Amino acid sequence: MTCLCCSLRLREEEAEEPVRLRLQERQQHCHYIHIVFSPTERAMNPDITRERNNATFDVEKLTHILDGSPEKTRRRREIESMVLSDPDFQEEDPNFLSRSERYDQAVRKSAQMILKLREYGIADPEEIYCYKNCVHPDRPEPLDLHLGMFLPTLLNQATPEQMDRFFMPAWNLEIIGTYAQTEMGHGTHLRGLETTATYDPATQEFVLNSPTVSSIKWWPGGLGKTSNHAIVLAQLFTQGNGHGLHAFIVPIRDMDTHVPLPGIVVGDIGPKFGFSEVDNGFLKLENVRIPRENMLMKYAKVEPDGTYLKPPSAKLTYGTMVFIRSMIVGESARALSKSCTIAIRYSSVRHQSEIRPGDPEPQILDFQTQQYKLFPLLAMAYAFTFVGQYMNQTYQRISGDINEGDYSELPELHALSAGLKAFTTWATNSAIEVCRMSCGGHGYSRSSGLPDIYVEFTPTCTYEGENTVMMLQTARYLVKSYRQAKAGQQLSGIVSYLNEPKHQRVQPQPVAARPTVVDINDLVSLVEVYKQRAAILVELAAKSIQQELQRRKCQEDAWNNSSIDLVRASDAHCHYVVVKLFTDKLGEIGDTGIHSVLSTLALLYALDGIKKNSGDFLQAGLLNVPQVLLVSVRVKELLSQLRPNAVALVDAFDVHDKKLNSVLGRYDGNVYENLFEWARRSPLNATEVHESFHKYLKPLRAKL
Amino acid sequence: MTCLCCSLRLREEEAEEPVRLRLQERQQHCHYIHIVFSPTERAMNPDITRERNNATFDVEKLTHILDGSPEKTRRRREIESMVLSDPDFQEEDPNFLSRSERYDQAVRKSAQMILKLREYGIADPEEIYCYKNCVHPDRPEPLDLHLGMFLPTLLNQATPEQMDRFFMPAWNLEIIGTYAQTEMGHGTHLRGLETTATYDPATQEFVLNSPTVSSIKWWPGGLGKTSNHAIVLAQLFTQGNGHGLHAFIVPIRDMDTHVPLPGIVVGDIGPKFGFSEVDNGFLKLENVRIPRENMLMKYAKVEPDGTYLKPPSAKLTYGTMVFIRSMIVGESARALSKSCTIAIRYSSVRHQSEIRPGDPEPQILDFQTQQYKLFPLLAMAYAFTFVGQYMNQTYQRISGDINEGDYSELPELHALSAGLKAFTTWATNSAIEVCRMSCGGHGYSRSSGLPDIYVEFTPTCTYEGENTVMMLQTARYLVKSYRQAKAGQQLSGIVSYLNEPKHQRVQPQPVAARPTVVDINDLVSLVEVYKQRAAILVELAAKSIQQELQRRKCQEDAWNNSSIDLVRASDAHCHYVVVKLFTDKLGEIGDTGIHSVLSTLALLYALDGIKKNSGDFLQAGLLNVPQVLLVSVRVKELLSQLRPNAVALVDAFDVHDKKLNSVLGRYDGNVYENLFEWARRSPLNATEVHESFHKYLKPLRAKL
Repeated sequence: MTCLCCSLRLREEEAEEPVRLRLQERQQHCHYIHIVFSPTERAMNPDITRERNNATFDVEKLTHILDGSPEKTRRRREIESMVLSDPDFQEEDPNFLSRSERYDQAVRKSAQMILKLREYGIADPEEIYCYKNCVHPDRPEPLDLHLGMFLPTLLNQATPEQMDRFFMPAWNLEIIGTYAQTEMGHGTHLRGLETTATYDPATQEFVLNSPTVSSIKWWPGGLGKTSNHAIVLAQLFTQGNGHGLHAFIVPIRDMDTHVPLPGIVVGDIGPKFGFSEVDNGFLKLENVRIPRENMLMKYAKVEPDGTYLKPPSAKLTYGTMVFIRSMIVGESARALSKSCTIAIRYSSVRHQSEIRPGDPEPQILDFQTQQYKLFPLLAMAYAFTFVGQYMNQTYQRISGDINEGDYSELPELHALSAGLKAFTTWATNSAIEVCRMSCGGHGYSRSSGLPDIYVEFTPTCTYEGENTVMMLQTARYLVKSYRQAKAGQQLSGIVSYLNEPKHQRVQPQPVAARPTVVDINDLVSLVEVYKQRAAILVELAAKSIQQELQRRKCQEDAWNNSSIDLVRASDAHCHYVVVKLFTDKLGEIGDTGIHSVLSTLALLYALDGIKKNSGDFLQAGLLNVPQVLLVSVRVKELLSQLRPNAVALVDAFDVHDKKLNSVLGRYDGNVYENLFEWARRSPLNATEVHESFHKYLKPLRAKL
Repeated sequence: MTCLCCSLRLREEEAEEPVRLRLQERQQHCHYIHIVFSPTERAMNPDITRERNNATFDVEKLTHILDGSPEKTRRRREIESMVLSDPDFQEEDPNFLSRSERYDQAVRKSAQMILKLREYGIADPEEIYCYKNCVHPDRPEPLDLHLGMFLPTLLNQATPEQMDRFFMPAWNLEIIGTYAQTEMGHGTHLRGLETTATYDPATQEFVLNSPTVSSIKWWPGGLGKTSNHAIVLAQLFTQGNGHGLHAFIVPIRDMDTHVPLPGIVVGDIGPKFGFSEVDNGFLKLENVRIPRENMLMKYAKVEPDGTYLKPPSAKLTYGTMVFIRSMIVGESARALSKSCTIAIRYSSVRHQSEIRPGDPEPQILDFQTQQYKLFPLLAMAYAFTFVGQYMNQTYQRISGDINEGDYSELPELHALSAGLKAFTTWATNSAIEVCRMSCGGHGYSRSSGLPDIYVEFTPTCTYEGENTVMMLQTARYLVKSYRQAKAGQQLSGIVSYLNEPKHQRVQPQPVAARPTVVDINDLVSLVEVYKQRAAILVELAAKSIQQELQRRKCQEDAWNNSSIDLVRASDAHCHYVVVKLFTDKLGEIGDTGIHSVLSTLALLYALDGIKKNSGDFLQAGLLNVPQVLLVSVRVKELLSQLRPNAVALVDAFDVHDKKLNSVLGRYDGNVYENLFEWARRSPLNATEVHESFHKYLKPLRAKL
């Protein structure tokens, strides 16, 4: 059953409560559609229908695999329908609003969201996340940090007494909080933060200060206008000694009037590349006094006389970072899936240029260059989805252990999540732009949805750990593991390949001198070469450090002078992990049709990676020249092989039109009529004659 | 002499008329500065001063080389001062305005610009371009197409009678025109355009129509709200026959009231990724009648009875495309220069993280990874600047020949400009984002200037010929030349290397089997390997076509099935040309200090290109594995070598602070104070409490 106004595919049960769809009143159900289509326009574009008919696998079943299970697909769609059919979440197209109006609309919807989540009793974090991502279609929103950082930090770091004082008011939005960590001059490197909290035993208060311009808190979401409290990370000083970073609950605005409190200079940091719905803010603290009891003291403590008590373990905050970075891997997959959906659907209905003279203009998707732009990215979207699933499952498994005090697997997961966060976000960041530019001129129109996907996604390369720093963290783990292996220690887990004796003697050497037994059509064989490449590049980086040390550089300079090689080693390690996890996933797929198409994607992902990094594989003697030439030929064959399934493969991501929010990526393929309708709603078209004509252009004539 | 309010370096003569600077009233001169600095804040950041003191060459002399001559530098600065000190061009920061306000401000400034250009008698196209780029700092503006396409098209294609009717009114802005070529469904492939102009001999009129939705004219700048006329490209039909595309002058709005004329549906196409100052528009023509005399008839003609007379030559419009694409190469260089200026200056004053524990936080620029992100791009900025100069000079030289009817060099320049347009814009597009992301979180703030540079630049990858199509056009020329060479014909010009007999037998083969005589420290030797790589990849592409033909594919399918290889061949050809032109340029540099630093840059550009494409060089047997390893080592050495000159090298681009419009890239390095001041002016800070608190957040409490 397909909804006639928005092409949403529905099943019977979705038409029931709590979805509250009344299908007998179809025109009312799509509150977001401002244009009512005539019956002919509502028909599917025949090109896209033909594409769907050509698919060789069951799209619905693949969607279940991507969601995790048929039940998860059902529940996700249920939640999506709840939000997308709810008139309270109807919105103006943000593209047509000013920044202040966008913020205003976002606050309205966030307030509604809080009410509805409680009304419907949605409490599972994954379901809340899904609901939120429909209310604010993959856009960050002003309460993100209240819900995602302020409340969880209370739960994790507040004492029972503090929970009593702060949690319920925060739960009921009397306290709206944010998490103020980064400063104008300090981001990823936490030890550099300058904000101070000095304990005054006379009054039993902490005195908070921003001692320099660069110490002004900068970037926290919701800080500018929304929050009345902030958890402030500051350097603790008591009894004349510094004790490093600790967290303090600081009231910043009057809870009734919302006016900033004395000593608080707070505001919005100004327009950004994206994030227009969020009031990322600044906070300057000028001798702000808070009671001793406002330091989060579940672990570290300051006693009334100023005595400092250390926390029992430093690893406690470790887990959150790992969790968030793992989540970002999944966000990469989603952003890439959406971008591929738009670019591939549009390429299937867009006719342009010519292949054979005299023939009608072909679908863009028939051009080999277009396939070569998009299909490797489609393969990457699938790869990253499965990596995201793996990271999530691993985190869930390990966090059980952590709760029982077993931290043994955490360092590996920490290293993996850091590197994969960087690897997937960098790749996705470039890929979104390739998708956008593959749409010709219309990719530049905001109606395509692609500019927004890009600007909302690109900060993932920097926040939650700057990507180069992340790659170097992973490299640190790899080099450490390599040295352990060389010292004869037996490694376990994903770095165990560094143990394998043959890699310890692998040396870059002339291609002709090495035997090559790689089967480029066999994924297991390709996983093996990716692994060997990683092992060799880790070794090269470790040797670079060694050589620098021999030149009497200190350890730190040796590290810095090898950092290009270290990043490259991390990159190769992550690439190996992705190829491996994609290959592993295929083992779980029972359906023949799906197994076949996913195998083609996995092979394309692996071979395209070799094609684009062929120097590494040749240099290490892992492949010879005829094999590399053959890889190029196979890549072309795989493109042709995927061509009939391309649209079905993006359909399987099952991104609802309203979440996709793209005229080019519409499920029905009716691009041009809708592009015209969208443009006519542009605010510049509110009047036929813009006032600037009368103000400037007409008077100009008289002066010339 | 340095201006105390804006750090503009001035010489005596610049303080004179017509610059109209009154240095005795220094505070008045900088109209754009909204913050008055106290004397201490006005001081240079000591980090950046130290960087400048460390430079080993004369920055001013390098600026002269980049401008073309000391005289050109002087005149450019004179024009910049004229505009930047003119209160009539004072503007609100566009980041703080709505789209309609941005358009309004742009129209105001464009109208002023027309007046002033005539007042000052600035008529040289290069000087007009320079003036315009200061009035609208590297932003497109609403009159761009009137000045850059409408007037020139009249000059080139109007009959004397048409010049009488249209030129002076257009010169005096009574007629404001645009150039309406692209349609909703058609861009680069001109033959696909659908708009029709059918001649009616009964009334001696053309009847213009947009027969389909996809034929609606879409994207022309200034079409939405600004223009009252358009030169419309349409398929001409007369006496029952089609004669292809021709240009027609179509009135679209009433010249007095500016209201759209009957049969005209015109408007703005809505918000875009950038280009917020421009009203890119749509135009739907519904039986619009224009007199026969409105067809531009300098070459092709339709006689009163409907008889069609062909134009004498089809090559006449060829030149303009070549010119615009050559210009875009220069724009790549400028966008990249600005991005590098911002990222490198900020990296020199930004301290972060640690190299050695206990030491103060180092300048970001001391991290090898940061150098590796930025210095190859700096080298690229210089490379593209010199390529831009070459293209400009070559165009000037050839256009003299063209005017005398000699088109012999045009095909080569056409092929070269197409490929280099694609090569330089793609590379720059990615590079701007690398620069932005190298600035940490603040790169995402609009105050950095980098988001704007990106969104204003990225359309160059698509407009004036979509990049992949451009690469394939160049490839067509290369394959044709290759076949001619193989058939024994002697080639001349830049493709003459396809003649060289040894390349005709080069075959990909095992590295060990080939002698390697390349000196990786010698640019001439590197030019040679780039040339050989290009020759081999052209041959590979040509052979791919041959193989496809042998499989009984038709010529067109064979071409399409080889297009990945063809793009790769074009890319290698362009890469060779860039390395060659950079190397050639060094021969013109007499100053030792400058020659030395530019040689380092050229070597870095060439070696980094090898490092990033090492597979090609290994595969072709042009370099062996030890050489490739050595290239990586040399790249690191070159980074260290460039480190002391990095800031001076971006200073030499001499981009005025007001044109750079970046808090991070300020000449004085005083980033953080100014970031804070900028943020405080954010519109969201106009009130302490945003109305959304009272509308949504406070009422929410009562409901929870």
